Amino acid sequence: MNLRHPPLAEEKVFKDPVHKYIYVQENLIWKLINTQEFQRLRRIRQLGTSYLTFHGAEHSRFSHSLGVYEITRKIISQFERSAYPDWPREEKLIALCAALLHDVGHGPFSHSIEQIFDTSHEAWTCRILLENTEINRVLREYDPSLPEHVAGVIRKTYDRPIVISLVSSQMDADRMDYLLRDAYFTGVNYGTFDLDRILRVLRPYQGRIVVKESGMHAVEDYLMSRYQMYWQVYFHPVTRSSEIILRQIFRRASELYGGDYPFRFILDPLRRLLDGTLGVDSYLALDEALVQSVFMQWTSEPDPRLSALCRRFLHRRLYKYIAMEDADDGLWEEIRSEFIAAGLDPEYDLEIDFPYDMPYDVYRPGARSLTEKDEKPPILLLDGEGRLSEISERSEIVRSITGLHQGKYHIYYPEETVRESAHLFRPHIRAFFGFL
Amino acid sequence: MNLRHPPLAEEKVFKDPVHKYIYVQENLIWKLINTQEFQRLRRIRQLGTSYLTFHGAEHSRFSHSLGVYEITRKIISQFERSAYPDWPREEKLIALCAALLHDVGHGPFSHSIEQIFDTSHEAWTCRILLENTEINRVLREYDPSLPEHVAGVIRKTYDRPIVISLVSSQMDADRMDYLLRDAYFTGVNYGTFDLDRILRVLRPYQGRIVVKESGMHAVEDYLMSRYQMYWQVYFHPVTRSSEIILRQIFRRASELYGGDYPFRFILDPLRRLLDGTLGVDSYLALDEALVQSVFMQWTSEPDPRLSALCRRFLHRRLYKYIAMEDADDGLWEEIRSEFIAAGLDPEYDLEIDFPYDMPYDVYRPGARSLTEKDEKPPILLLDGEGRLSEISERSEIVRSITGLHQGKYHIYYPEETVRESAHLFRPHIRAFFGFL
Amino acid sequence: MNLRHPPLAEEKVFKDPVHKYIYVQENLIWKLINTQEFQRLRRIRQLGTSYLTFHGAEHSRFSHSLGVYEITRKIISQFERSAYPDWPREEKLIALCAALLHDVGHGPFSHSIEQIFDTSHEAWTCRILLENTEINRVLREYDPSLPEHVAGVIRKTYDRPIVISLVSSQMDADRMDYLLRDAYFTGVNYGTFDLDRILRVLRPYQGRIVVKESGMHAVEDYLMSRYQMYWQVYFHPVTRSSEIILRQIFRRASELYGGDYPFRFILDPLRRLLDGTLGVDSYLALDEALVQSVFMQWTSEPDPRLSALCRRFLHRRLYKYIAMEDADDGLWEEIRSEFIAAGLDPEYDLEIDFPYDMPYDVYRPGARSLTEKDEKPPILLLDGEGRLSEISERSEIVRSITGLHQGKYHIYYPEETVRESAHLFRPHIRAFFGFL
Amino acid sequence: MNLRHPPLAEEKVFKDPVHKYIYVQENLIWKLINTQEFQRLRRIRQLGTSYLTFHGAEHSRFSHSLGVYEITRKIISQFERSAYPDWPREEKLIALCAALLHDVGHGPFSHSIEQIFDTSHEAWTCRILLENTEINRVLREYDPSLPEHVAGVIRKTYDRPIVISLVSSQMDADRMDYLLRDAYFTGVNYGTFDLDRILRVLRPYQGRIVVKESGMHAVEDYLMSRYQMYWQVYFHPVTRSSEIILRQIFRRASELYGGDYPFRFILDPLRRLLDGTLGVDSYLALDEALVQSVFMQWTSEPDPRLSALCRRFLHRRLYKYIAMEDADDGLWEEIRSEFIAAGLDPEYDLEIDFPYDMPYDVYRPGARSLTEKDEKPPILLLDGEGRLSEISERSEIVRSITGLHQGKYHIYYPEETVRESAHLFRPHIRAFFGFL
Repeated sequence: MNLRHPPLAEEKVFKDPVHKYIYVQENLIWKLINTQEFQRLRRIRQLGTSYLTFHGAEHSRFSHSLGVYEITRKIISQFERSAYPDWPREEKLIALCAALLHDVGHGPFSHSIEQIFDTSHEAWTCRILLENTEINRVLREYDPSLPEHVAGVIRKTYDRPIVISLVSSQMDADRMDYLLRDAYFTGVNYGTFDLDRILRVLRPYQGRIVVKESGMHAVEDYLMSRYQMYWQVYFHPVTRSSEIILRQIFRRASELYGGDYPFRFILDPLRRLLDGTLGVDSYLALDEALVQSVFMQWTSEPDPRLSALCRRFLHRRLYKYIAMEDADDGLWEEIRSEFIAAGLDPEYDLEIDFPYDMPYDVYRPGARSLTEKDEKPPILLLDGEGRLSEISERSEIVRSITGLHQGKYHIYYPEETVRESAHLFRPHIRAFFGFL
Repeated sequence: MNLRHPPLAEEKVFKDPVHKYIYVQENLIWKLINTQEFQRLRRIRQLGTSYLTFHGAEHSRFSHSLGVYEITRKIISQFERSAYPDWPREEKLIALCAALLHDVGHGPFSHSIEQIFDTSHEAWTCRILLENTEINRVLREYDPSLPEHVAGVIRKTYDRPIVISLVSSQMDADRMDYLLRDAYFTGVNYGTFDLDRILRVLRPYQGRIVVKESGMHAVEDYLMSRYQMYWQVYFHPVTRSSEIILRQIFRRASELYGGDYPFRFILDPLRRLLDGTLGVDSYLALDEALVQSVFMQWTSEPDPRLSALCRRFLHRRLYKYIAMEDADDGLWEEIRSEFIAAGLDPEYDLEIDFPYDMPYDVYRPGARSLTEKDEKPPILLLDGEGRLSEISERSEIVRSITGLHQGKYHIYYPEETVRESAHLFRPHIRAFFGFL
Repeated sequence: MNLRHPPLAEEKVFKDPVHKYIYVQENLIWKLINTQEFQRLRRIRQLGTSYLTFHGAEHSRFSHSLGVYEITRKIISQFERSAYPDWPREEKLIALCAALLHDVGHGPFSHSIEQIFDTSHEAWTCRILLENTEINRVLREYDPSLPEHVAGVIRKTYDRPIVISLVSSQMDADRMDYLLRDAYFTGVNYGTFDLDRILRVLRPYQGRIVVKESGMHAVEDYLMSRYQMYWQVYFHPVTRSSEIILRQIFRRASELYGGDYPFRFILDPLRRLLDGTLGVDSYLALDEALVQSVFMQWTSEPDPRLSALCRRFLHRRLYKYIAMEDADDGLWEEIRSEFIAAGLDPEYDLEIDFPYDMPYDVYRPGARSLTEKDEKPPILLLDGEGRLSEISERSEIVRSITGLHQGKYHIYYPEETVRESAHLFRPHIRAFFGFL
Repeated sequence: MNLRHPPLAEEKVFKDPVHKYIYVQENLIWKLINTQEFQRLRRIRQLGTSYLTFHGAEHSRFSHSLGVYEITRKIISQFERSAYPDWPREEKLIALCAALLHDVGHGPFSHSIEQIFDTSHEAWTCRILLENTEINRVLREYDPSLPEHVAGVIRKTYDRPIVISLVSSQMDADRMDYLLRDAYFTGVNYGTFDLDRILRVLRPYQGRIVVKESGMHAVEDYLMSRYQMYWQVYFHPVTRSSEIILRQIFRRASELYGGDYPFRFILDPLRRLLDGTLGVDSYLALDEALVQSVFMQWTSEPDPRLSALCRRFLHRRLYKYIAMEDADDGLWEEIRSEFIAAGLDPEYDLEIDFPYDMPYDVYRPGARSLTEKDEKPPILLLDGEGRLSEISERSEIVRSITGLHQGKYHIYYPEETVRESAHLFRPHIRAFFGFL
């Protein structure tokens, strides 16, 4: 019991479409939700540009963060009810804070911005936890060591690995919520799996969360959902097309800024992003409303490249795409040459996309995640004799989805522009693009 | 068959969480969806500030507009399949266009802006249909009279009233979609009714859409859903609180603008809103991203009232509220006097809210809608002998929900500010606010 | 802790389509479920003959009984979690037993059999609790006074009325489960309401279960669901038609049995039903499989009335029906006379049905239930000052559905038989039946 | 247009929980549904004894048959709407009849009865179509060749293979309905897949139904659902345990009947099953009500084996089971010997179960189904150039689930009986059974 944080007189409840209700029983959690840094997550979409493919996918990181908190709360509450000896009860509040706050460092269209400007939402999460913010103040009031502890969980350096694995592992609360939530809001039904059943088979065991052996089929079902969401939603080529345009806007703005181009309009947080001087305050002001508003102003910038790209993004004039077989490295080189020869700009008029360059990964046992550069603990099955085995050793289904080789390469390009120059291509390249 | 609009080679399909799929079979509809004015609806939320109460309610008018189109398409397709003689087949495309475009004139947080600046989204819809826009161009290309016909449906002057009643009546495609959609995204299950069954009992009859008598219970269920959504979602006092703050921001900005206050920051479309010179182009640039970005900048305006209100809105520091019994006119006057006596500003520190001052209305037979100033055709039951009766004559349930008298008045106020001056109130007013 | 009933080593779980999972934590409950008397409920349909109208309604009283248990368990578990002082914790197990076993005395097609043979499923439930059965043995082993206590709850004489009101009141676990379950299995969506929200607003208070005032709209929604289910499912005229045939079969068998008709085939439990000598053992053998098998044999009984009725029931050759306005008593008498004059048998060829003669009732505040002959406690709202008010005083919606006057009378008759004699009717009676 | 079968004046509609509504537009279909042979399917459960594992699984073959009809109707209606040239429009009615009637020959607990008495529900379906039944009469009235044509589809000899593949192939209307329906009624959510999307990617092509290439992920999802249902529901060891008891009852009755045992009670259709003289009439009288009623009477037969087995079945006293690794053939032989040595009867006290001995199969490309003895057409993908490929060539997921090797062997036995003799077992066998 913390004197500055008396328990809530009454449980607080949020109506949530995925979990029905989200229950807040701790004053600390309630105060964190009401900080301006957490409320800002309402202005960051959970799925970036996916709403241009699935019009329902307009949900924010705010609702996802509440969902991750709620799943974590349910897992812990079941661990407590069953009185499992391997669950350290004193870690509850740290785990709940880390679950709630793990995405608080996300910026607008994070994936694209992180690629172009080499930032990291996890680093920003830690700065928001540790620097001069409302979140930091609320945490410190409760316990001066709390900001550092929660940041430790985010950085995966906290000394109780079981807390880390609740929030970050191959079957953590984060993934469970986003699969269910993204499925709900896009309207696809691939992402649905039996959360109640998964929760019932989780066990704290020797410093990690493992799965009771009898839950293997439930885990297979969860991994299949993930696999389907990966290919049907997260890697959808139309979404990729919109991300390419977004990256090109940032790239162009960066080139112009570096070249002292006199922007008719710019807002401070974006200027700081371009010149690399973002601090916590300006980062927090950098939300999707700001990015979209600047893009709207930029539709009348004199630089024709920049204004055209912004119009494409806002009016959804996306690049067309064509699938290419894996092995066609020669073809790709040839296309680039033809583009250059025809006077097109291969930096803007042609992109090739390798689907695995993404923040989502399919299950890979013990492997390094592709972009996050760190290993996620694999899913372990616990048998009746206390032995652990990694799930892909046991399930052929899981083995079959651990690879990534189904993805095709896609070529993206502005169709009208390319069409105008297509008469300069050699015939088989013309045919490849369908310009006959 | 229109030569400039050949049929689509293949049906287009949108994944939609409410209707599963939305089917586009006409090239004209496909082109309208891809105009920049229609794409802009992605930047206008369907439920205004309700996302501050129900965090899932982040869906846009874009998805709602597609939904209204889809329900209209289903109704017409059933009328055609059953070959009802009272359905004028040649009106199909006009009805579909009107369904799709009926909300295209909505601006950001429409309800608040319309109240403060006395604009009308329906008037803007007509201007967007008729002036120099992509939508106008696409419609004219198909048939030069189409913009005017569609605008006629919006204005309710079109000479085939059955088309109007599809899009605007007590049981139109608009309401059916928003009830289902708002229920889905908020996560409440009050708004769900059996759409398939409703669609099966609709009949075109003598220039209007009526309901087969045996469908009375289905209509009761639909009206009950509406009633529940009205009180549980649309009139939620927390949402009202956020709207009050929004209106105060616009009111304050308007006062400052009129008083030649030198805004440190403002964007052109908003300036034009303030000085009443909005044209179609600037209106179209006025989306919720822009409004939120300006508010974010205004959090550091020197005017303390304006900056504080913007912080309240963005960081969700809403006004508190207290319910007051209907009859307490005396109490209300007394509270106002006490506020003035205590040096508080009754224009900003105190608001009273009458819940019927809203764009949503419960069912009222043949009555004028409260804010839209025009009569919506009531729901008529058709019996086996071709006689019509208005549903509230037949159903006691419906009669019981046609009134509005359940609403309480609520008083809204900034708690911290009022608390500071509360010692100056007379004791029973202090007690009313709970300052003891 | 009871030594003969050690706690279950591990929680038992049933997969349930309505509540997702049903959790059994007490050894006593587990043993009760496994008694032969409880397992027999698998052979008694929850909705009697409704499966002839809604083909999905094939669910048994077994699943409903588990559902009532689960809702009761959830309510109590929330009362315990919130540590409400008015909940007597020591009553938990008695309440759970009563919830689980409240329907164990139901026989096949109970409603029809109770009407014809004047039996009562509640009386049978008590006999099964108290006489020589496995259920009695399991209860006694736990505590010798348990059978009598549980029977007291069923009979509503138990001295802790709050336990009775959990299982039997206007908003008890029984009704909540059957509305949700019957909606699920029939496939109508009228019966769905927000169970989680209802559970959150229930409070134990001064010996009864009441509803927090802020839950009024949730209760309205529940009562509307009940009202809709009542008219759309429970009173469906096709179901009534099949019940009439069932009652006629029992009536005919009774007449024949009384007249010493030599049945070619009969089974002992049915014989005992006919001669009024049913004991617990034979009652328990009287399930729907037995009734249907005997009917199948009776399709070749020499008595033409009996065999024809059995064929009608098994092959779903139901009686036709016509609605009649309430006031037409004169018409009804006239029709009877015409039937007699035309040589038809008004005991079998003509039935009039008053829809309120049913085991389901709409909400009536404090009123006597129509057929169960005893008062159900009404729904009380609890305000912040601890004052109670009956819900229909507060809600106009509820007042509007407390009456029963919507029901029409229906006349049922075997169409082919009546058609043959219709030329003997006077013209306006012929016209009434549509024989022109 | 057939004169004896004028079109229905109005579309008939059944409420269905899985497809929402089932639409009947043809008089012929309406008449077939109302035959006594089709109505009899209400007395045959879709999932046999699975209701003893999943209490919701009480649905009948009646509702499944309507569902198969509805899916077939939807597929054909889409083929017609898209005017695919490879769909033979004149086959519509034959396909709908075959879909509706394909299961009409199922008896009670078909799988067990077919194993013990070597009958075949498909042969019975054909007899019911072709012999003296109401179904035969209704079909002949429409067209004298119709019974033979529909039987041809059932026998897979009909000369338009595309009609056969609608009703019987690796992705036919039968499987699609039962997966969705069994998932709905058991309450598991493994069986749900996106039916609308599957229907949209089906194409009639060169005499078969194929899948558009872009639908591959949808098919993977469908096959994963099937795989999950296979292991979670259809092969559930508790269901297998109840089937073993059922088979033992039939086996014991058969032995007794062969040995001239004087049954105290038996009903004619069952006697004919035992002596192999079932005709269509007696087969149709053999429903699950009859089987359960006879079992109920047999609980007091003097033969102790028979009466004990019937009590086990009715009161759900199932055999216990233990999993055994695949390779343990030696262990299995040893257990049998120990049972014999200990005086137990290995014919009744011990069963081993190989999970693939079942009417359900996972997907196997072009392979013979395990028990139905005939090849099901595999799933073919159609690419843009009109080339076909079998799906498991393209999808590693599908390859990973085409085998059957995940199943463990299970040993089933009556625990109390075996426990009594267990002291006679050698220690490691005792340990294997957990009798320490």
